[in-house]
Amino acid sequence: MPHDSRILHPALRGRLMSADDAARLILPGDTVGMSGFTGAGYPKAVPAALARHISAAHAAGQPFKVSVWTGASTAPELDGALAAADGVELRLPYQSDPVCRQRINDGRMEYLDIHLSHVAQFAWFGFLGKLDVAVVEVAAILEDGRLVPSTSVGNNKTWLDQADKIILEVNSAVPAGLDGMHDLYYGTQLPPHRKPIPLVRPSDRIGEPYLRCNPDKVIAVVQTDAPDRDTRFAAPDEASRRIAGHILEFFAHEVAKGRLPAELLPLQSGVGNIANAVLAGLGDGPFENLTAFTEVLQDGMLDLLGSGKLAFASATALSLSSQAREAFNADLARYRSRILLRPQEISNHPELVRRLGVIAMNGIIEADLYGNINSTHVMGTQIMNGIGGSGDFARNGFLSIFMTPSTAKGGSISCIVPMTPHVDHTEHDVQVVVTEQGLADLRGLSPKQRARLIIERCAHPDYRPALRDYCQRALAGSPGKHTPHLLEEALSWHVRYLRSGSMAAQA
Amino acid sequence: MPHDSRILHPALRGRLMSADDAARLILPGDTVGMSGFTGAGYPKAVPAALARHISAAHAAGQPFKVSVWTGASTAPELDGALAAADGVELRLPYQSDPVCRQRINDGRMEYLDIHLSHVAQFAWFGFLGKLDVAVVEVAAILEDGRLVPSTSVGNNKTWLDQADKIILEVNSAVPAGLDGMHDLYYGTQLPPHRKPIPLVRPSDRIGEPYLRCNPDKVIAVVQTDAPDRDTRFAAPDEASRRIAGHILEFFAHEVAKGRLPAELLPLQSGVGNIANAVLAGLGDGPFENLTAFTEVLQDGMLDLLGSGKLAFASATALSLSSQAREAFNADLARYRSRILLRPQEISNHPELVRRLGVIAMNGIIEADLYGNINSTHVMGTQIMNGIGGSGDFARNGFLSIFMTPSTAKGGSISCIVPMTPHVDHTEHDVQVVVTEQGLADLRGLSPKQRARLIIERCAHPDYRPALRDYCQRALAGSPGKHTPHLLEEALSWHVRYLRSGSMAAQA
Repeated sequence: MPHDSRILHPALRGRLMSADDAARLILPGDTVGMSGFTGAGYPKAVPAALARHISAAHAAGQPFKVSVWTGASTAPELDGALAAADGVELRLPYQSDPVCRQRINDGRMEYLDIHLSHVAQFAWFGFLGKLDVAVVEVAAILEDGRLVPSTSVGNNKTWLDQADKIILEVNSAVPAGLDGMHDLYYGTQLPPHRKPIPLVRPSDRIGEPYLRCNPDKVIAVVQTDAPDRDTRFAAPDEASRRIAGHILEFFAHEVAKGRLPAELLPLQSGVGNIANAVLAGLGDGPFENLTAFTEVLQDGMLDLLGSGKLAFASATALSLSSQAREAFNADLARYRSRILLRPQEISNHPELVRRLGVIAMNGIIEADLYGNINSTHVMGTQIMNGIGGSGDFARNGFLSIFMTPSTAKGGSISCIVPMTPHVDHTEHDVQVVVTEQGLADLRGLSPKQRARLIIERCAHPDYRPALRDYCQRALAGSPGKHTPHLLEEALSWHVRYLRSGSMAAQA
Repeated sequence: MPHDSRILHPALRGRLMSADDAARLILPGDTVGMSGFTGAGYPKAVPAALARHISAAHAAGQPFKVSVWTGASTAPELDGALAAADGVELRLPYQSDPVCRQRINDGRMEYLDIHLSHVAQFAWFGFLGKLDVAVVEVAAILEDGRLVPSTSVGNNKTWLDQADKIILEVNSAVPAGLDGMHDLYYGTQLPPHRKPIPLVRPSDRIGEPYLRCNPDKVIAVVQTDAPDRDTRFAAPDEASRRIAGHILEFFAHEVAKGRLPAELLPLQSGVGNIANAVLAGLGDGPFENLTAFTEVLQDGMLDLLGSGKLAFASATALSLSSQAREAFNADLARYRSRILLRPQEISNHPELVRRLGVIAMNGIIEADLYGNINSTHVMGTQIMNGIGGSGDFARNGFLSIFMTPSTAKGGSISCIVPMTPHVDHTEHDVQVVVTEQGLADLRGLSPKQRARLIIERCAHPDYRPALRDYCQRALAGSPGKHTPHLLEEALSWHVRYLRSGSMAAQA
């Protein structure tokens, strides 16, 4: 479909301009709400043009920074370019760009990590301040000004509603066949006017296929023709396959015990190599007629849809490798009745996650003996990506599963530690921890019982003796024996790693 | 009302027996679901009789322990008696009994701390194992076997449904006029069969006034005539009054900014002296037509209902001082149309907390520089009471406020610390921290920005220099500058307190 047939609103066609000219409408100090969720549906041209303007201003000695709100992670053309230009005052929420991350960890960019289901409502509540400009990628502009969303929905509905000014990028690389795969729910309200959200199955359509947009607020329309980020995962390695195996075995056990139906419950899966391996494992497993109620539809989930194992997937983003994207685009008719893309406040909504009984599966950085989870901070101080939606799903779902290899950096880091120096998921929200070593089912266990299980089932054998030793000494020496700790050495594994490059005690 | 008119079911009247005989029906190894929530509606006679049997068994060299599930905290006659008899294998969820706490912290009793909205569903899901016996206090037994609930609902609906055997305590001290003040929602289901919960205002009645009960499962009925725990709070001290003042000023500011309606949003208030002071402050404040959607209706809230400031209160327990209880009982007609007591899975339900936009106000033990909260563990290892419902409300509500005096133990403990050695509420769930020193509004701030505000607004002046110094050195020396920390000394304040009795650095 050529661009001409994608911009059907006459007045908005009159606002066509170059990315460069559009970016000039963004001013120093502005807060900009960008589209984009896990490398899908982010604006391809305006952010880079903005970054060039910022660099030019800096070269001329003029300060120029903006604050950037998104759905979740974007791509080098957005987060990378703006961070490299030192153009970002504050970024929220989830990000995963290496340049952006470095800038945050160098202390040169402020970053605010928020549960993904909270972002939109915090914006309407006025908790985050004023939104000046929205920059949103769309697949097309309809005659009446409504917008066909792109490969992610994220917070676009909220950005379009809340921003004073709107810049639209119409990307002709987005397949026209996506039209109709979105479900925009316009029933959310500010409290005390909220009503029940009428969704009881992942496949329920509760909204409209198009984004509403006030054409009077649109200050620029930019044409692009560029693909999304190529979101590629490594082929499952041995550790990932073993983690997947433990989880599948656990599911089978739960079904046998009558605690899960044969088709399980709607699955949420974080992004990454391990999540992809779990999805691959489900493809080979005994479970049929699965559903997903999740954030991101990644390659592994598309395979499950393709094989028929997965009956339906509700998400907020299509985050695919270039290869999977081609296959998807070539076979869209096959998928379009089995996928709905929703705003992230709906894909991650506590009400819906609890009602549907979602099974949450998320990767982590490390777990401690008592089941507290660090999902975000390397050695307690350096942000990795962000909490994403893991908290929305783990707190409110049916079952919360956290996954990690037992070690990292060639064995020099144990991912099971005495105490995590940052906590994103507390002991209260963690029911299962799984590594390639095994699975610890923590349901119904006290802290000390959890510790025994986590060490024996999840820790790497090389680190088990030291963990057992810590536990025994903590139980003897701790003033409180409910959650025994020796505070002098609780973080010593991390200190040792920072000093010596290994958590292992020196021989 | 005499006992005779409280037990109208003929067959159940035939199962009347002494507490002693009823307690004999509880066997070693049983899991017992007891009624009781914050000292209200707990069984008054059978637990103490059970404790005597356990002591006798122990004296005869026979092992005898049970696991005890409740709604929340009970009283010395239940938690205290069973703990003193060394009769509890595992206790869940929230408890606040000093003997019980000591036993847990000595490592002689297992304790499992669970979000209060999760307990009932974990029981139905089969995550906690089998429930053998329910011991539930009621106000009366109707002719058809249905039960008039007592002063708390808690998890009683679930215990009655799930237990193999039921022991009822009919307490004639519970005013007959409570009949009709309960709302038992029987629409919850196991996923994937759950439907929206049709509650959109705190005052909505969505269920039935009585508990359903299968008379065939009732193995004993015991008559009692004993009051609930006398839940008394200290009169607000200067620090509590100042905390309340900061919160009221904040509410007024939010109303002025248009971020809160004039009647605010439904209030949730934790239990304790500070919460009571905030409620007293609201009584003197400018806000009218308030509502509460909370767990516990305590003295301060009853005063607000009495003065007319509070239009309606939804809770799961009436937790009153003996004085307030007398006033309440004498004037029941005045309150009965303005209070509903619901199961705790409804009073704390994520779906409802999010929909209603609850303002969560909870007391804590300590906060760290970045807004992570420890609600449960003294010096990281000794359980205080438990997380209660604070996580249900803080994660899913409109606004999460955490309150503490800036110091404890006569100034030897700073309640603002570099790092908390236990985390119950992560940085992602904490929007406002308030001490008598001031209020830190953390919305929209990055970790470093939060730290500055928490130190300058909340920390005690005696501890501010040391906190500033830590921050500065952490920013210089931390490998990551997103959440700067010096891991070697992050917990040193707690270590110093344990060694020297004070967190203050030696001069």
